[in-house]
Amino acid sequence: MTNLEDTIIALATPQPVGSNTGAIALIRMSGKRAIAIAQQCFHGKRLSEQPSHTLHFGTIRDEQKQPIDEVLLSIFRAPHSYTGEDSVEISCHASPYIIRSLLDLFTRLGARLAQPGEFTLRAFYHGKMDLTEAEAVADLIASRSKAAHDLAFRQMKGGISSEIAALREELIHFASMLELELDFGEEDVEFADRSAFRQMLERVSTRIGHLIKSFALGNAIREGVHTVLAGRPNAGKSTLLNALLQEERAIVSDIPGTTRDTIEEVLDIHGLAFRLIDTAGLREAGDQIEAIGVQRTLEKISTAQILIYVYDQSELAPEEVSRELEKLYRPGLYLLVVANKKDLCEQAPDLPGLPSALIEESAKEVKAKIISISAHDKKDVRRLADELYHLIVEDESLLESPMLSSLRQLEALRRTEQHLAKAKEGLQQNLTSDLIAWELRQALHHLGEITGEITADDLLDNIFSNFCIGK
Amino acid sequence: MTNLEDTIIALATPQPVGSNTGAIALIRMSGKRAIAIAQQCFHGKRLSEQPSHTLHFGTIRDEQKQPIDEVLLSIFRAPHSYTGEDSVEISCHASPYIIRSLLDLFTRLGARLAQPGEFTLRAFYHGKMDLTEAEAVADLIASRSKAAHDLAFRQMKGGISSEIAALREELIHFASMLELELDFGEEDVEFADRSAFRQMLERVSTRIGHLIKSFALGNAIREGVHTVLAGRPNAGKSTLLNALLQEERAIVSDIPGTTRDTIEEVLDIHGLAFRLIDTAGLREAGDQIEAIGVQRTLEKISTAQILIYVYDQSELAPEEVSRELEKLYRPGLYLLVVANKKDLCEQAPDLPGLPSALIEESAKEVKAKIISISAHDKKDVRRLADELYHLIVEDESLLESPMLSSLRQLEALRRTEQHLAKAKEGLQQNLTSDLIAWELRQALHHLGEITGEITADDLLDNIFSNFCIGK
Repeated sequence: MTNLEDTIIALATPQPVGSNTGAIALIRMSGKRAIAIAQQCFHGKRLSEQPSHTLHFGTIRDEQKQPIDEVLLSIFRAPHSYTGEDSVEISCHASPYIIRSLLDLFTRLGARLAQPGEFTLRAFYHGKMDLTEAEAVADLIASRSKAAHDLAFRQMKGGISSEIAALREELIHFASMLELELDFGEEDVEFADRSAFRQMLERVSTRIGHLIKSFALGNAIREGVHTVLAGRPNAGKSTLLNALLQEERAIVSDIPGTTRDTIEEVLDIHGLAFRLIDTAGLREAGDQIEAIGVQRTLEKISTAQILIYVYDQSELAPEEVSRELEKLYRPGLYLLVVANKKDLCEQAPDLPGLPSALIEESAKEVKAKIISISAHDKKDVRRLADELYHLIVEDESLLESPMLSSLRQLEALRRTEQHLAKAKEGLQQNLTSDLIAWELRQALHHLGEITGEITADDLLDNIFSNFCIGK
Repeated sequence: MTNLEDTIIALATPQPVGSNTGAIALIRMSGKRAIAIAQQCFHGKRLSEQPSHTLHFGTIRDEQKQPIDEVLLSIFRAPHSYTGEDSVEISCHASPYIIRSLLDLFTRLGARLAQPGEFTLRAFYHGKMDLTEAEAVADLIASRSKAAHDLAFRQMKGGISSEIAALREELIHFASMLELELDFGEEDVEFADRSAFRQMLERVSTRIGHLIKSFALGNAIREGVHTVLAGRPNAGKSTLLNALLQEERAIVSDIPGTTRDTIEEVLDIHGLAFRLIDTAGLREAGDQIEAIGVQRTLEKISTAQILIYVYDQSELAPEEVSRELEKLYRPGLYLLVVANKKDLCEQAPDLPGLPSALIEESAKEVKAKIISISAHDKKDVRRLADELYHLIVEDESLLESPMLSSLRQLEALRRTEQHLAKAKEGLQQNLTSDLIAWELRQALHHLGEITGEITADDLLDNIFSNFCIGK
């Protein structure tokens, strides 16, 4: 995958399928021979004489001079291209036959079909972007909500990179002084002021801790918030769901779940996507059936971040609700208990108790909320949507600050944190400089992995294979 | 639809859907204000100062200066663009959110979402192409076989236009002399040499006749040849179908029928697409069931061009085959009777007789062929594929000559032919010049409709509404 000598080619726009044809398709080619290969089949101006960032109309003909298509061809000269290499983009008619014929022709003329993400990988190799920026390109393309888009766009413009670079710089400063001490070996000098060193480690660790904590929000923004809707039949779940979907802007009416065969509704609240999984309804009947209903709901809850539990407060006693919540709750889950049909109650009944496991956790960060509504009442539904949003976004200002959104980045940062903790420990226990220096080097290594100053081939493969072909 | 004052915009590439995302999407905008509207949100170079056919990197921001995407923007200045108007193409990241946000932004800034085909309609209005060329653009995008592609490409380059123009010129010459005679009214002069006139009408009619005849081939190439596969269970239909699909290149494994719910296999033979509709199999059992089987097959045959009837010649007597063919045949159908399983026959049995209706027709152009094969034998299958191809393409040189491929063109040409016939009749009966001149004017009118020298709004609506949006 890392052979930069090849000239690579791919269809960069979606495949025309069925009635989703489009008028135009874009084929992109990058590499040392891109312009020369294009020249072999392009009949129009001499491409080698054309400046960068110009467009040329002409006909592409095969080896027998048979025309394949009239195209608009764009020229980009290194380093002023996406990849940093000489590149050509061909805008042709979006016919499956033409696309296939052009790709076939270009590969016969010496180009190679690109791997997923290979254009962006080359942009990385040629210093056009670091790894967090490259990952953000894929996130940007996948983004379906305003929050996901804004986060990806900021990351693409180096949102997290500058934060990581600043931390790295601080660490490198002390690490190099420690290395200097090692050079002097036996002489037992201390170039690195131990107290300033300790303060620096504290400071860096705190900032890394914040970044690690930001992953929960970043990931929720990027992936959408997995939300399970549960409750007994006739609790008003469907009414609530429909009211929510009407009130807010549904991005898409349904997305087939990736790992399950349920249909999700996606709800956009203030630009944040909530992926709502409706459950079949917990039966009131015999224990056997109820157990099955609970079991199914528990399975769905196991990967969810929020459980919305809806009940009819004019019918169901708070104690029964508490009992059901006890069964459904798992630690870490955010809970929104919706006491529905308040319009049917002459006076407000008691609210149910929260699950005991949740109360035990409450020293840590626990999020739960009970809200009494009438799903028929638009105002209540808007209030409920706001509650949902604020379960995830406690502080709007966090949306603007650097945020981790990739599991890879999170893992590298956790490893960084571990080695920094050991370095701090070593400092406290007055361990020798070489042991502390080793921990610092490890921490720097993992920090460098995030932006790609430190890379390994398998890491790159892993990142870029998640891209679409043509990017 | 014909308001040329508006600046129109559309997504020109296929919509990213599910995993078919692509890296890039292309949004195209055309009209007087295209460059000015783009300038309002594009942060980069001053677009108004940039020459035609140049590409510019920049950021598109909304009214609150929030970035939507980093894009490559292409500028085309009138008349050097597809539409002949000032145009802008924006190559952005293929995120559904970004595409929607950009289209929303541009419409807020004064552009209007384009109707299907509206860009090409503008190209027509601005004299960049005539109607046959415009229709060919849609055909080119829809083309899925080499033959369909080559035909559409030739039409797009004026393949039929020049033929029509030549015919028109001949007619206009005589028509104008006839009109001159009318001007001289009572004086009874003849500017148009009646014998040369008659010869011209013969010549033009013959060429129009050829063009009308070419529609069968042109339509088969454009739409694919509708082919029905029928026969009793165990006749070897499936074996044959699989052998054909393996031997030849299947373009797509299945295409849902547009008007029926059967699945078609598409078989590419020498670049020509055959749309094979498999039938459930004609039962041997009771008459009732057999009747239903025949009825279903007849329904499928009613829109087909070729019937491939397969039978097991080691089992089924030729008389029975003849009887079944009688039931299935309808006039005009091409018939390929496949006597299968010749490997199981010690000596070749008699071949069945052809349907009587077919024999009655044989004075006219009738196509039928009986071929004895073994579906297990690759060589036979290739021979059968060749037979199929030659049922449609009798003479390969016809593939290179001007060909009608659109029903609209066919109808206009038929009307032209009718008026020419009446003109010839009038000439023979020595009718007055004014009557003959009227027929010529009508003929010229319909001939002009083909390329669009004569247009009506509803005609244009009809043509361009079949386009995809963005073209």
